Amino acid sequence: MVAKRTVSEVGEFGLIGRFTEGRVQPVSTLLGPGDDAAVVAAPDGRVAASTDVLVAGVHFRLDWSTPEQVGRKAAAVNLADVAAMGAVPTALLVGLGCPPDLPADVAEQVAAGLWAEASRVGAGVVGGDVVSAPALVVSVTVLGDLRGRAPVTRAGASAGEVLALAGRTGWAAAGLALLAAGRETPPGPVAAQRVPEPPYRAGPAAAEAGATAMIDISDGLLADLGHIAEASGVGLDVRSSALPVPPELAEAAAELGADAVSWLLTGGEDHALAATFPADAALPDGWRVIGRATPGAAVTVDGEPYAGPAGWTHFT
Amino acid sequence: MVAKRTVSEVGEFGLIGRFTEGRVQPVSTLLGPGDDAAVVAAPDGRVAASTDVLVAGVHFRLDWSTPEQVGRKAAAVNLADVAAMGAVPTALLVGLGCPPDLPADVAEQVAAGLWAEASRVGAGVVGGDVVSAPALVVSVTVLGDLRGRAPVTRAGASAGEVLALAGRTGWAAAGLALLAAGRETPPGPVAAQRVPEPPYRAGPAAAEAGATAMIDISDGLLADLGHIAEASGVGLDVRSSALPVPPELAEAAAELGADAVSWLLTGGEDHALAATFPADAALPDGWRVIGRATPGAAVTVDGEPYAGPAGWTHFT
Repeated sequence: MVAKRTVSEVGEFGLIGRFTEGRVQPVSTLLGPGDDAAVVAAPDGRVAASTDVLVAGVHFRLDWSTPEQVGRKAAAVNLADVAAMGAVPTALLVGLGCPPDLPADVAEQVAAGLWAEASRVGAGVVGGDVVSAPALVVSVTVLGDLRGRAPVTRAGASAGEVLALAGRTGWAAAGLALLAAGRETPPGPVAAQRVPEPPYRAGPAAAEAGATAMIDISDGLLADLGHIAEASGVGLDVRSSALPVPPELAEAAAELGADAVSWLLTGGEDHALAATFPADAALPDGWRVIGRATPGAAVTVDGEPYAGPAGWTHFT
Repeated sequence: MVAKRTVSEVGEFGLIGRFTEGRVQPVSTLLGPGDDAAVVAAPDGRVAASTDVLVAGVHFRLDWSTPEQVGRKAAAVNLADVAAMGAVPTALLVGLGCPPDLPADVAEQVAAGLWAEASRVGAGVVGGDVVSAPALVVSVTVLGDLRGRAPVTRAGASAGEVLALAGRTGWAAAGLALLAAGRETPPGPVAAQRVPEPPYRAGPAAAEAGATAMIDISDGLLADLGHIAEASGVGLDVRSSALPVPPELAEAAAELGADAVSWLLTGGEDHALAATFPADAALPDGWRVIGRATPGAAVTVDGEPYAGPAGWTHFT
């Protein structure tokens, strides 16, 4: 049996060669990896940009996820951020910190996961940096194209508008609870924890359909709706009947003695999109009404404050 | 005496508030921090982008540098990358990994350093992410505006052209050797190790003057010239008489029993710019001829291979 080579043995330039070899860049990549900077098309004269960092032991565990899943998740959480502005992702840049004794294959599979997820939306991995670090760190910056539209911020909602959701909530939180309990079934939530499935195309579609405010649900539905409420100066009321408990979450909750409704309302990491639309707007495919914007200032469920932790914040 | 609050006590949103409060964004920042993504002007329909990561204990030490110097360095190494394409930096995005027990003041001063250096070139810190990590990690992505010019890559040099340098080499390496020996004098090289002084404006000026290839000297003059030689298919010969030893480097070398010429040729982290220009080009301010491009394929000094380590690579 041959010992696997470490990132230290393969070296910085060897790793970069492995990450970039054979990759096909989209046409929006005007200059790809290999120079001091990449050059990416920004056809309408603006670029949307966001950064999210994933750290081993904090955001993922290599005994719970494959390196390829880690790469896909790192890409997904970023791609969802530009989608939430109504933009179409064009490029990822990746800062990869690796312990020197990490098998080079692991780093390579993280890169493969980043590429796999980026390719789903037509984006390329256009550049990055590989450094030594005490833990595996995947810092991703995503660029996106607004296609001539105004960005859909958190600040445009008005009372009387409908509140809508694209994608799902509670699945990744249920998967985390299952993995923490040493379980791998039901498989749906576990898979959702390993790799989220953000509704990327629903972001630009919502912008096109006149969404007035939009956010990526990363920390939990109620917590992230709180950001729209605060930025827009509105209340947001979620109708619980619009969020039925899916069978797999009911099964997971029964197995763990947990509360599936709490997962739906406060679980993070699924990267659904929530948006407000004018009351008479025709919602695009993938969007469903889950409530409405009100004259208040709070996020409520069926008109009442929700009694429970609202979601995830770092360091607290 | 009051104990300083840690990042864990201040929390993610508290930290972001401290980082962003009172900052004045440049006009190129169409939408700053506080939403899912920032929006930055890209007036000519393209954006130059690059990522570099700095890790405590690898790229800096908090007992050698202040947090503000760490932030400035993290910005500088990135800003130099887009300058080396001939672009003008417009924006930084920052992924900041903090140990939970890090004093919040330290994180805040890193952010202040990032802002200070970005402001020198008219760029803003437009977004980022703050996460828990086992060591302080500063991952920066820089965006830049090419101002309608083609990017100056590493691949355009031809034999017969002049090789020129803007900025200095050897200073940061001398400073590192001094700090490792427990010395803080001479002060010039020590300061250069803590915060490089890349010649940002020399990059776009070189592009305007017709530079055919350009690179940021991050790993060492000879090592990085090797990238131009390889990408362009030329040799590059450095004239040693064009790189006189500055008095402060001579003093540092004498104190440490080190070789100042080796610092000049192979020391990294000063982020000078090297470029090739047509033989008849008028070099812009800040640029001086240090050699020429030749029909060969190697980087040489006075026509001979240099006997010594060529520069820094990670993991080796």
